[in-house]
Amino acid sequence: MIYIVGVGPGSEDYLTLKAIKTVKNADIIAGSKRLLNLFDIADSSKFVLTVNLKEELKELLDKKENYSNIVILSSGDPCFSGLLKTALNYVDKKDIEVISGISSIQIAASKIKISWEDYTILTLHGKEENRENLLNLIKNNKKVIFLPSNVKKDIKYLLDNGVNPNKKIWICESLTYPNEKIIYDSFDNILNGKNDISYFSVCIVD
Amino acid sequence: MIYIVGVGPGSEDYLTLKAIKTVKNADIIAGSKRLLNLFDIADSSKFVLTVNLKEELKELLDKKENYSNIVILSSGDPCFSGLLKTALNYVDKKDIEVISGISSIQIAASKIKISWEDYTILTLHGKEENRENLLNLIKNNKKVIFLPSNVKKDIKYLLDNGVNPNKKIWICESLTYPNEKIIYDSFDNILNGKNDISYFSVCIVD
Repeated sequence: MIYIVGVGPGSEDYLTLKAIKTVKNADIIAGSKRLLNLFDIADSSKFVLTVNLKEELKELLDKKENYSNIVILSSGDPCFSGLLKTALNYVDKKDIEVISGISSIQIAASKIKISWEDYTILTLHGKEENRENLLNLIKNNKKVIFLPSNVKKDIKYLLDNGVNPNKKIWICESLTYPNEKIIYDSFDNILNGKNDISYFSVCIVD
Repeated sequence: MIYIVGVGPGSEDYLTLKAIKTVKNADIIAGSKRLLNLFDIADSSKFVLTVNLKEELKELLDKKENYSNIVILSSGDPCFSGLLKTALNYVDKKDIEVISGISSIQIAASKIKISWEDYTILTLHGKEENRENLLNLIKNNKKVIFLPSNVKKDIKYLLDNGVNPNKKIWICESLTYPNEKIIYDSFDNILNGKNDISYFSVCIVD
């Protein structure tokens, strides 16, 4: 069986008992170095994924008969902008079991103390075409939580298309990591600020 | 400090390490019997919540000065149709810390192996007025994940308002419990089926 295991936003604190148990019972565990380090895994059972993720996953899954239990670690929830979609390019649904994990958007909601059923959730990760949806939602004063494609470029697009530059946005960077940073400021100030903003941020517009 | 702790869909497997740690460090833990039983808690530290949840929570939070760390257990994720909103009626945001948990909609997505960023998420729990939104989404062939108010009444409303009775729906009942049941059938068959369907279901329309 192939297990796609959600490991949450990055801190060990958000691992589920099921994720820990599933990793323990696997004969090979694939993931980025950062995610593999969340667990106590023998080097011989590690399959390190790099930026060539897709090729590497394909290479592993082409040899799936060699293993009884394969784990693929996914940050956040595999079912939200996670590795489930990628894995389904190479294997059949019936050969996969998915273990849910905490998504970074949930952590962002917990920090700001909002209920995400009141928000439209949108990902721009690898989906720049969703910028237009984002624009329409914000112009219609809808509440939105989104994963940015590039925070400053996304904001520039919004302002270029008539959004009020004084409107405010929450930017939640590096959630659950020691360098976690949460900013609440106007679009204008964020756009013109000196600091770069991480791709791994969650943005919230109320 | 008051911690609103998400415990996931109900099985111990989906507890996070952070939830376990936070409960361990609390001097009083409030929750339904079912949720309290997920942890190893001395009887003297339990504060059992019943159907009179709101009055009981208020009673506990009115005495909050008596405790250093209060935990309120919330099934699923406190930030999705969870206890955060209820708690905010009685205490200030600054006195609360929220620990995210896995929502039942995530488990449903993991079972059906879909990515929930492709779906509109809607809760009808205590929000029957959202039936109209549900109707519009389904009539416009949008993919929807929703928490029902009453599955059969919700479906009846859809069919009474022109939705094709042959359209299919996933119903995920009692997720992660031993009596978990996942059905994929037409609206018509579900509506006319003999069995009652639990309020604690997740419904998915593709």
